[in-house]
Amino acid sequence: MLMSELRRDPMTGGWVIIATDRGHRPSDFGSVGAVRRSGFCPFCPGNEATTPPEIRAYRDPGSAPNSPGWKVRTIPNKYAALGIEGDLAREGLGVYDKMNGVGAHEVIIETADHNRYIPDFSQEEMTQVIRMYRDRTSDLKKDSRFRYIQIFKNHGGAAGASLEHSHSQVIALPITPRWVKQELICSREYYAIKERCLLTDIIRQEIHEGLRVVYENEHFLTFCPYAAKFPFEIWIAPKNVVQNDFCMIQDNQIGDMADSLIRVLRALRSGLEDPPFNFIIHSAPSKYPKAGAWQTIDQDFLWHLEMIPRLTRIAGFEWGTGCHINPTPPEDSAVFLRERIAEES
Amino acid sequence: MLMSELRRDPMTGGWVIIATDRGHRPSDFGSVGAVRRSGFCPFCPGNEATTPPEIRAYRDPGSAPNSPGWKVRTIPNKYAALGIEGDLAREGLGVYDKMNGVGAHEVIIETADHNRYIPDFSQEEMTQVIRMYRDRTSDLKKDSRFRYIQIFKNHGGAAGASLEHSHSQVIALPITPRWVKQELICSREYYAIKERCLLTDIIRQEIHEGLRVVYENEHFLTFCPYAAKFPFEIWIAPKNVVQNDFCMIQDNQIGDMADSLIRVLRALRSGLEDPPFNFIIHSAPSKYPKAGAWQTIDQDFLWHLEMIPRLTRIAGFEWGTGCHINPTPPEDSAVFLRERIAEES
Repeated sequence: MLMSELRRDPMTGGWVIIATDRGHRPSDFGSVGAVRRSGFCPFCPGNEATTPPEIRAYRDPGSAPNSPGWKVRTIPNKYAALGIEGDLAREGLGVYDKMNGVGAHEVIIETADHNRYIPDFSQEEMTQVIRMYRDRTSDLKKDSRFRYIQIFKNHGGAAGASLEHSHSQVIALPITPRWVKQELICSREYYAIKERCLLTDIIRQEIHEGLRVVYENEHFLTFCPYAAKFPFEIWIAPKNVVQNDFCMIQDNQIGDMADSLIRVLRALRSGLEDPPFNFIIHSAPSKYPKAGAWQTIDQDFLWHLEMIPRLTRIAGFEWGTGCHINPTPPEDSAVFLRERIAEES
Repeated sequence: MLMSELRRDPMTGGWVIIATDRGHRPSDFGSVGAVRRSGFCPFCPGNEATTPPEIRAYRDPGSAPNSPGWKVRTIPNKYAALGIEGDLAREGLGVYDKMNGVGAHEVIIETADHNRYIPDFSQEEMTQVIRMYRDRTSDLKKDSRFRYIQIFKNHGGAAGASLEHSHSQVIALPITPRWVKQELICSREYYAIKERCLLTDIIRQEIHEGLRVVYENEHFLTFCPYAAKFPFEIWIAPKNVVQNDFCMIQDNQIGDMADSLIRVLRALRSGLEDPPFNFIIHSAPSKYPKAGAWQTIDQDFLWHLEMIPRLTRIAGFEWGTGCHINPTPPEDSAVFLRERIAEES
């Protein structure tokens, strides 16, 4: 396991996870960008003993833990960025602040089949994956050391995936990350003025204008955001609900979320040649500390999923400013994706 | 020229530059990551007519504009993200905000020699490049439409460079970018409590501890930051001065900044096989609007340069949270770079 600590950058207020073991040498960076495609896959059925023992799995009746017979399987990340044991030991060092790298880092293996991923899934298969997202998030929230649970997926080497077998990840953090805080603060400021949820207002405006809508079903709107940072950036958000926390997703919504994800990823695969992508669930943090300025109340924030196909490079300007240059208007991205989804249906 | 508009993301408060011409199709993304290395280079002497007319150049006495005989040459970016003409036309659209993509986007060609870049430069050559940074920043600050002037450099395809010939870029923006604001706010809050500049305190602590120092000369400290987001992240900051704005750099400092940059980039080239990198100058914004909460007073902020070798990939977790996982402790990066600099001297 990676030994790590959390360090706060006083210039931005953001926390960074820093490895504190001394094993990493500059030569370790030679393989950046490569996805391992060798014969042996630790995520395939039959190889369960080569991973850490499973935390939770949806299994065929009668199958034993850590053996074949599972549909979706969650394990600790063998190369975890954070360790589950110990206490935080918050400490100041002059102008700096640090704490131990305490958290959880899990891998959700989405399918037993090495050769399939989300665009190949049935709605029922994807529903099981989203159920697992909810199960793991709900469980980790019970640990009072954790402030924020992040569900995300990396697909393709350029998007940070190091194993080919389709999987998502969960990281539980003892801090609320800075960009999450920023979203919560913006939503709260809007609510303070309007007494309406910002993202709910955005959804209403997007449905009304129709320009950036990619796909809509009963419970979810899929659209390219007005200020898209990247070509084909896609948000999937729940409609007609008050849910600041992803854990609040109801059984009757999950099927429509699965349907939206499958359709969007089929469109990306057919239209953009299976690009590398990340998706990330944005949710409210756990309820600690109560006094945090970014603490959401139930009505002011709406959880959602953001997806970024990795088609362009991040250069110095973007890194210096946080101001992205997007060469593809989201209105064009939406038309393109709508057409692909219509073709696939 | 790219037609563009600035759009504000209501969920983060950040502005994005969105292309509004319709010329970009998904197939345009096929060449992502490639640096053009074909025979013809528009930045080479003799090809001046193939670029837009120069804005400023340091030239041999008697040489004519837009002809050979220059040492450092600034031209408008042929593929500018922002256009220099027109007014901002600020407008609201329901929950959204936009304005015209008004700004400046310039290219600083650092040398006439296609085959040399900063580690090959003499101190005098790099001094001329930094003088050009100052000249262009000072000039663009006179335009009251602009709030922030960003100097940056992309080296290598993975860092966003599209042409091989060594160059930097300048972008003048009609907004203060969100990450700049964040730095200014953190520095101001610190100053409000301590009546000391945060970065000056950081420099003092780094010199005292010595653990993360990479190189030091009379006027600059080069170090790996305590909460480094990336392996071998490097900051270069001026010592013993009150300068919130990069334009305030004095002639007697520029040589030492040039020396620091050359030595660090020689160390990266010899130790890490000439990795792709970005560097970015962080500076105070122009003095408009006076009332902005992020407006710096002279004493609370210190300009500096941040450099990121592009050795690791940004995955979904980092995109979702702004919380980076750095596998190389900055203390290790600093030892490694100190050793390379000693070898090169």
